[in-house]
Amino acid sequence: MTRADNIPAPAVRRLSLYLRQLEVFLAGGKPTVSSRELGQSLGLSAAQVRKDLAYFGQFGHAGIGYRVPELIHRVRRIMGTDKHANVLIVGVGNLGRALMSFRGFTKHGFEVAAAFDKDPSKIGERVPPGEGLLIQPLSAMPAAVRKFSIRLGVLTVPAPAAQSAAEAMVDAGIRAILNFAPVTLQVDPEVAVSSVDIGVHLEQLSFRMNGSVS
Amino acid sequence: MTRADNIPAPAVRRLSLYLRQLEVFLAGGKPTVSSRELGQSLGLSAAQVRKDLAYFGQFGHAGIGYRVPELIHRVRRIMGTDKHANVLIVGVGNLGRALMSFRGFTKHGFEVAAAFDKDPSKIGERVPPGEGLLIQPLSAMPAAVRKFSIRLGVLTVPAPAAQSAAEAMVDAGIRAILNFAPVTLQVDPEVAVSSVDIGVHLEQLSFRMNGSVS
Repeated sequence: MTRADNIPAPAVRRLSLYLRQLEVFLAGGKPTVSSRELGQSLGLSAAQVRKDLAYFGQFGHAGIGYRVPELIHRVRRIMGTDKHANVLIVGVGNLGRALMSFRGFTKHGFEVAAAFDKDPSKIGERVPPGEGLLIQPLSAMPAAVRKFSIRLGVLTVPAPAAQSAAEAMVDAGIRAILNFAPVTLQVDPEVAVSSVDIGVHLEQLSFRMNGSVS
Repeated sequence: MTRADNIPAPAVRRLSLYLRQLEVFLAGGKPTVSSRELGQSLGLSAAQVRKDLAYFGQFGHAGIGYRVPELIHRVRRIMGTDKHANVLIVGVGNLGRALMSFRGFTKHGFEVAAAFDKDPSKIGERVPPGEGLLIQPLSAMPAAVRKFSIRLGVLTVPAPAAQSAAEAMVDAGIRAILNFAPVTLQVDPEVAVSSVDIGVHLEQLSFRMNGSVS
């Protein structure tokens, strides 16, 4: 067992993969799993699985392996996704709208509680129309962060607007940003940032199909 | 210089980051950059930058560093994103629709040329309405792959439908899949797969905010 911030990032990333795979086993009615089975399903060795999990605690049972529901419960608690948490979205364009109805948030304990845009023509609109969330101006962010105890924000603005929007989020009290803009955000190192750059994924696939060295 | 498939994956991923940063320098009118400057802007050492680039060729000029437009051009050629390429999308739900108008495709040389869904109520619809792409049944995929010489497919179907949709894509001739479904796809190892799992990103951020070891 190690302090949370001393655990190698790849081990934390693999913990998400283990959880995803354990949920597949649970859905299939599998009560227990060995480190070898869990590893095999993800192309990893049993030793890698055991080493990764050992950073977080003691989970196995002699002669049984891991109990699937118990390991899922404990990993969710470790990740902090066993509790409900509100998130906000900044940037209600096409991608922002798609994410506002993304069921994966709920599955991971998150709920989109507020949405913001700097375009005056969008303010006051509801997404989805009628019953949905009211789109608010960025100036309303601090009040929403306090009201809904929001710490995580999703950033879906165009690249040129991303840095200033991220700063507004941090000023409003946001402590973690899921960034979809293709820029490297410069924020307080205490703020956790995770970036989804679809362009990078496309480039990597292109390289694996066509890549050539000059 | 090394064969493309012998270059470490992290070096290929960083090549995308270098390209992104070089485009920022170009937009700012910066004609040349040193490995130290390029590294600093990304939190990497000059030695790391030089080592990564050396896998792909010889790019620097003595006393000058890298010429920004030249390095961008050569990196795009290495990635295979200097040429136009058609892609298809399978799964025209909320995320699929968002990606159909995602400008990042064009920026990286890709164009969405065809869209597919298995829901009969969506077949024949145009996205965006009027002028947009016709949504076609999965059975029309092989013909579209041939007609538009498509090799890359974007998969945006719900998790339970992902594996069979991926198999249909590979059978139709797709050689690379950008997968947004939260599942590990089992496909021919010759097919390149890159997965964007938003749930994993949320979990990682949650851990960095709340993470605790048991």
